[in-house]
Amino acid sequence: MPKNRKELPKLDGMKPKDGVLRVMPLGGVGEIGMNCMLFEYNGEILMVDCGQMLPDEDMLGVDYVIPDISYVLERIDRFVGIVLTHAHEDHVGALPYIIPQLPEKTPIYGSELTISLQKEKLKEHGLAPNLKLLTAREKLELGEHFTIEPLSVTHSIIDSFALAITTPAGTVIHSGDYKIDPAPTDGVNFDFHGFSSYAEGPDEGVLLLLGDSTNADRPGMCPSESGVIPVLSRLIREATGQIIISCFASSLHRIQTVLNIAAQYGRTVFTAGLNMERNIRVASQIGAIEIPCDFVPDADKAKGYPREKRIILTTGSQGEPLSALYRMAFGSHRSIDIQEGDTVIISARLIPGNEKAIYRLINHLFRHGAKIHYSGNTPGIHASGHAYRDDMRHLINLLNPRFLVPIHGEYRHLREHMSLAIESGMQEDEILHLENGDCLEISRKGADVIGRIPHGRVFVDGKGIGDVEEVVIRDRKYLSEDGVVMVILSVSRDNGEVLGGPYLHSRGFMSEEGAEAILEDARQIVLDAYNDTDAEGKEESSVVQANVKKALRGFLKQKTRRFPVILPLIMEI
Amino acid sequence: MPKNRKELPKLDGMKPKDGVLRVMPLGGVGEIGMNCMLFEYNGEILMVDCGQMLPDEDMLGVDYVIPDISYVLERIDRFVGIVLTHAHEDHVGALPYIIPQLPEKTPIYGSELTISLQKEKLKEHGLAPNLKLLTAREKLELGEHFTIEPLSVTHSIIDSFALAITTPAGTVIHSGDYKIDPAPTDGVNFDFHGFSSYAEGPDEGVLLLLGDSTNADRPGMCPSESGVIPVLSRLIREATGQIIISCFASSLHRIQTVLNIAAQYGRTVFTAGLNMERNIRVASQIGAIEIPCDFVPDADKAKGYPREKRIILTTGSQGEPLSALYRMAFGSHRSIDIQEGDTVIISARLIPGNEKAIYRLINHLFRHGAKIHYSGNTPGIHASGHAYRDDMRHLINLLNPRFLVPIHGEYRHLREHMSLAIESGMQEDEILHLENGDCLEISRKGADVIGRIPHGRVFVDGKGIGDVEEVVIRDRKYLSEDGVVMVILSVSRDNGEVLGGPYLHSRGFMSEEGAEAILEDARQIVLDAYNDTDAEGKEESSVVQANVKKALRGFLKQKTRRFPVILPLIMEI
Repeated sequence: MPKNRKELPKLDGMKPKDGVLRVMPLGGVGEIGMNCMLFEYNGEILMVDCGQMLPDEDMLGVDYVIPDISYVLERIDRFVGIVLTHAHEDHVGALPYIIPQLPEKTPIYGSELTISLQKEKLKEHGLAPNLKLLTAREKLELGEHFTIEPLSVTHSIIDSFALAITTPAGTVIHSGDYKIDPAPTDGVNFDFHGFSSYAEGPDEGVLLLLGDSTNADRPGMCPSESGVIPVLSRLIREATGQIIISCFASSLHRIQTVLNIAAQYGRTVFTAGLNMERNIRVASQIGAIEIPCDFVPDADKAKGYPREKRIILTTGSQGEPLSALYRMAFGSHRSIDIQEGDTVIISARLIPGNEKAIYRLINHLFRHGAKIHYSGNTPGIHASGHAYRDDMRHLINLLNPRFLVPIHGEYRHLREHMSLAIESGMQEDEILHLENGDCLEISRKGADVIGRIPHGRVFVDGKGIGDVEEVVIRDRKYLSEDGVVMVILSVSRDNGEVLGGPYLHSRGFMSEEGAEAILEDARQIVLDAYNDTDAEGKEESSVVQANVKKALRGFLKQKTRRFPVILPLIMEI
Repeated sequence: MPKNRKELPKLDGMKPKDGVLRVMPLGGVGEIGMNCMLFEYNGEILMVDCGQMLPDEDMLGVDYVIPDISYVLERIDRFVGIVLTHAHEDHVGALPYIIPQLPEKTPIYGSELTISLQKEKLKEHGLAPNLKLLTAREKLELGEHFTIEPLSVTHSIIDSFALAITTPAGTVIHSGDYKIDPAPTDGVNFDFHGFSSYAEGPDEGVLLLLGDSTNADRPGMCPSESGVIPVLSRLIREATGQIIISCFASSLHRIQTVLNIAAQYGRTVFTAGLNMERNIRVASQIGAIEIPCDFVPDADKAKGYPREKRIILTTGSQGEPLSALYRMAFGSHRSIDIQEGDTVIISARLIPGNEKAIYRLINHLFRHGAKIHYSGNTPGIHASGHAYRDDMRHLINLLNPRFLVPIHGEYRHLREHMSLAIESGMQEDEILHLENGDCLEISRKGADVIGRIPHGRVFVDGKGIGDVEEVVIRDRKYLSEDGVVMVILSVSRDNGEVLGGPYLHSRGFMSEEGAEAILEDARQIVLDAYNDTDAEGKEESSVVQANVKKALRGFLKQKTRRFPVILPLIMEI
């Protein structure tokens, strides 16, 4: 069982001893998303990944969630930079919000695709940070103490790295997100040799493995991305009308597969959605994908082509209401309609929490008489990008690390990862369960969580970063349940006499007629509550407000069993 | 493809021809839940089931959703009664809200368990309707034209019926919810003989099958309920500490299995949760379940027993925040805690839409160091109660119906049911795709959707039934996203001069400090908007309100990119 976090000291000004490395997750440990890991050696701080998380359904009105990086900001003169493992939003998506808080020259490193995509996206945010290229197997020295070697891993986006981070305390392997794909569609293999060199090299082997836990509850090995090819190939071959294929815009392997099959069957591929268009453009500019088929990156141009020659490649696999696929399904897309005889292929997984939205989308697609293929009725239409249990065992066997910290997963995934490590022969005291905000100190002598650092979920809402706190979300929650009733009473400043009102208005409380009748009755309740307040209380608007609120709340509860937010305002004139 | 519903006439006063039966779904067709079907023959109306649906996450603040039964209420003198197929809430749960609208003597029929459970539940609502017992294979004559024979089917609750409904127009088989379980744990078999007698009897066979479509996307046959026994048996045998088993309170087969295994291993079963306690009490009173083990229907008494002798039987398998299991997981249950060495078994499916809540629960259970078994990591821990595709084929083959109408399912399930019927040899024109509110007229001469009747989703919120409409839900949605800003300005009735304010207050908009600064700046915007309104406009409070709203909305958008609900009030004094 992990330590009780409340008993750990806050690390304020406590510096690590010489020869000791600090490992401090700011996000992605105990949750899916918002991946961000800090390493500190002898005063130098390195960040690996800086991702966003999509808000839970109870984080009302929040656009994105990002990690709190105040530990870095308070020590910014010692910050050596950010290294990105790959270009998924849960690893890079906080950059637009944290870059403005960092010094202009802060270097941000990543693979060619990662950097190329970030350059484009950050430009859209008006940012031009100091982006720098990493190449697999080329070591990077950062600051005085960090040597970082990127190692190629297979994952659902191309150009993904694990990182071997060497400091005087020893070598840490950060797995990034990975699977061990025996037949990657881009031909870039999982770098067994690179990993081996650390396990068996002239130094003392691997001190610590930080291992992706996303699929730690799935037995066996993750299927290869190339297994999707025959499935998509068959569906495209058998289709007689227009084909719409939805996948993540970042699934460049999958997109390459679709382009190849389109060439084979003489179909033209059109893209719908800005992310899809941008990602294909950037990836083909750097040679990360090839376009062997007729390709028109604009779905509006599809009209001139016969339906049986079209493939529309689009996002929206999660039922997002603003996506192109959603608009096609609900008949509101500018240029693409869905007709009987069409085929829709959703080549993506159902992300937990999105099921209802996805099924709503699928129901509407069925209404058009199209054939719908998705993971629920078509096995092999998608392959995960994350290691399953046996892949994780392989990585542990390959690296033989002294310590393991499971990362990238909810609590249950981390525990499942820990239990398979024990099955693989590791000892309980070699496996450390970290939580966000933990400070792990590690060296050849041992490893221990010695304290806690500032951390948390920062909400991005519109232009605001962090100005929506728990209390604001709670208010939104109350407002969402039974609406709001506002009460205005104007009284004389001189003698407390009622001059106007009370006026009662509601929104989201009940139907207009219903509300009118009840609020009419409630006026007397408000007046009584005001009049029953003693003279002293009447001078204190907070007292009057509290009395009005209490009386009105009781009245509405008894009449309706609802609890709207009550906003009383006493105006003195 | 189904007809365009907008082109169908509204059925107002149009009476069916002699010899023609009307079949009119009010709910459960094109959605999961709220099952309710009307049959009308020669002026007499019969209702089968009257269920509720849990609100979607976007039906903010709504407690339950029930069908609109105004078609029945407008013809109440011709209403012969309600027949219930089984006791699940999606078939009976609207009764507490519709019974008060019906004549006191309206008969409500159901199996012994269905009626016994309803009697208890309706008593809790202060209702004592005219409940009547149905027995399998005993025909009931209702009104002048309906003869109803209940036929036993296997399902996830015991005492479930399909109904053979015979009128002069022919016989309709309403499948209820069913699976074809080869080894039901209660020994009550799927009544093949009863069904056969309609297909092969002296009359003309089955005119129409209304068939459950819930699992129409699952290939093969639904596993038997008895397949769960060895799985639970192993988990209970291997457990060393306290065992907590969560299932639906209505899963009386599953509960019987747990009681039997508990007897075998000498454990005492305690219940937590009111529904669990009530259902076991009612079912054992009528002999529907037996209690062979030591049984204490009160979890508070578990403390006196050694942990390794306890089984706590509870609800909460869907992660419901008010359930006993949730409180145990989060350490706030009065008497049951979860410790290292305990075993938690969630013997239920993950209902789509509940995944995030269930995983949150599971993460917290893991935190206590307990072993957690659920459908994700333990195959066979649950069996569905609904027919899979091959079971549906069996039913079609068994009944050889002239027509099929798929019911009980979302659009995609209905379409999948239709496609398997075609694979089973039915012709396209023998399969009718109905939607809620359709009026199907059917006789030996044919079947056709001839019009539409009033129907819809009625929201139950607190004491209110139907007073929360779409517009109220939309307001709650807006409120939930960016909160509310209220603006009060008091002006002279005589000359329009500003006497007080503007006062601006917000809730759920942004943090208090943030809001204060922005709303302070916004006061001038409001004043300008008021002053810029011409004299004529100032006399019309709606004009002033619109101007204030527009100016403030633009200001807040520019400053924050948020769109709170703005409630302006101009008080004339």
